[in-house]
Amino acid sequence: MFSTRLFYAAMLLLWVSYAPQAAITDPLPSWRAGPVKQDIIEFVTAVTDAEAPDYVPPAGRIAVFDNDGTLWSERPVYFQLLFAIDRIKALAPQHPEWKTQQPFKAVLDNDMDALADAGEKGLLQLVMTSHAGMTTQEFSRIVTDWLATARHSRFKRPYTELVYQPMLELLEYLRTNGFKTFIVSGGGIEFMRPWAESVYGIPPEHIIGSSIRTRFEIRNGVPVLVRLPEVHFIDDKAGKPVGINEHIGRRPIAAFGNSDGDLQMLQWTAAGEGRRFMLLVHHTDAEREYAYDRKSHVGKLDQALEEAKKRGWTVVDMKNDWKVIYP
Amino acid sequence: MFSTRLFYAAMLLLWVSYAPQAAITDPLPSWRAGPVKQDIIEFVTAVTDAEAPDYVPPAGRIAVFDNDGTLWSERPVYFQLLFAIDRIKALAPQHPEWKTQQPFKAVLDNDMDALADAGEKGLLQLVMTSHAGMTTQEFSRIVTDWLATARHSRFKRPYTELVYQPMLELLEYLRTNGFKTFIVSGGGIEFMRPWAESVYGIPPEHIIGSSIRTRFEIRNGVPVLVRLPEVHFIDDKAGKPVGINEHIGRRPIAAFGNSDGDLQMLQWTAAGEGRRFMLLVHHTDAEREYAYDRKSHVGKLDQALEEAKKRGWTVVDMKNDWKVIYP
Repeated sequence: MFSTRLFYAAMLLLWVSYAPQAAITDPLPSWRAGPVKQDIIEFVTAVTDAEAPDYVPPAGRIAVFDNDGTLWSERPVYFQLLFAIDRIKALAPQHPEWKTQQPFKAVLDNDMDALADAGEKGLLQLVMTSHAGMTTQEFSRIVTDWLATARHSRFKRPYTELVYQPMLELLEYLRTNGFKTFIVSGGGIEFMRPWAESVYGIPPEHIIGSSIRTRFEIRNGVPVLVRLPEVHFIDDKAGKPVGINEHIGRRPIAAFGNSDGDLQMLQWTAAGEGRRFMLLVHHTDAEREYAYDRKSHVGKLDQALEEAKKRGWTVVDMKNDWKVIYP
Repeated sequence: MFSTRLFYAAMLLLWVSYAPQAAITDPLPSWRAGPVKQDIIEFVTAVTDAEAPDYVPPAGRIAVFDNDGTLWSERPVYFQLLFAIDRIKALAPQHPEWKTQQPFKAVLDNDMDALADAGEKGLLQLVMTSHAGMTTQEFSRIVTDWLATARHSRFKRPYTELVYQPMLELLEYLRTNGFKTFIVSGGGIEFMRPWAESVYGIPPEHIIGSSIRTRFEIRNGVPVLVRLPEVHFIDDKAGKPVGINEHIGRRPIAAFGNSDGDLQMLQWTAAGEGRRFMLLVHHTDAEREYAYDRKSHVGKLDQALEEAKKRGWTVVDMKNDWKVIYP
């Protein structure tokens, strides 16, 4: 049985090795030819060529990606915040007191000004109310159900379709070249896991994000993990290298972000020995997506853009470097 | 070039597929034939046979291993505590005040009774003093240097040689069958990472353990992570399922432990759907290693042993099931 399988595998390889080599197919078809695409390909070629001075064995080929604004859109606001808002609305019938109680009243009234007035404390309250109090399994189902029906206000598409086609190709290109691709996001680790594998090809164990505490309990004889309304870890800014170290335990050789929240992750990646690759996605396409940077309330890109210029990091100009935005 | 390589690969596979099949080699040569070995092989066969009802695709083949007492010895006390003690002694010349100050005095006097009197608070103080205050890179070097020279008091061998040969074979057997093997230990995550890859074949990103907080800083232009004397996470008992969920994000299908500290990890693993495998290593060999269980101060195995009996989990009798203990 085993040897039969091997025989077929051998036949297949023989066929592939003898078949006329196809014209080398472009691994990044949605990226326009130019210096950015060239940077990427040169880096991958340099670290995967066993004869080259910059060669990195597969085990060391760790690439980290921010999520919001790097792999999928983050406008008008982070999609996870829209999830929290929808969740509050869904829970409202069981909480008549929310009709008069901020920040819940603001959510139920769709009053974005009042919501902004609630500040960070109000936001945290919304997040905890919508994200805690259930088991991890229940939360996963809530996220999955939400994604199945929720639609983006401008594009009228599911949020999981508002991922960047060029970045999907880049993830695949890296994995084909022996990289392990990780998400390192300020977003919730358990908010991303239910869909990241089917959408990005990134398994749960390669997702790093912010988290709340959980508690192990045995309920009616069944072990569960209950999500508690307490912050465990904030995986943003200076937290990103901390999260990378905690989860991966070695330094990435490539890092991809789009905002000042990714600066420390890129600095940490850049500071390792040997060849490195740092890239920022610059949102420059108001027509096909959004255009924003230094003054944005979401995904602010200011200091990191300066550092990218100073240190020669690669900056994607979405409008010019990407042939398409969404799949 | 590429097709030439493929051609050779094909030739190699052809040779393998046609070569007379070697007598099936035993993947677990250090395990004596018997019900335990049979349990293991039956489980692996059941979940890897694509035609079998219990088949699990490779992505779901997650196996978690406790470290102390499951993969390496833990007597006379956890090796990491011996590291902390040696570290305190090495730092003592810079701390003359320790000569009169507990728990440091107890360490410097080799006074184990006084050390025990210092209790959990004293222990925590020793751990923080020996494990914090340096960068993650510096700590890794300190651990590596210590392991290079430290020797076990009874066996006079480096601690990294006091790993269980049968478990090394089991790790390899699982990986050969498409499993991802993770360590889930009460020990320090950064204490294990510097050596677990070369000793167990387990990469840093597959190590879960207890941790202290770290802080990202830029020192003289160089980004570093500084280890702080504050507990971040205790990966023991009910913390193990929490750590598994945080790092892996899916439930293991196999779990290996040796003490009550592993009970919840095994319960969490057992509670998933489909076929599962739970195993406890019972230390029954006073001659070749140590014999201890219900009354031990280290690696106490009491409640978990009861549960194993009740639920039919596999229990290794080290004395009878293992032909050899150490490599």
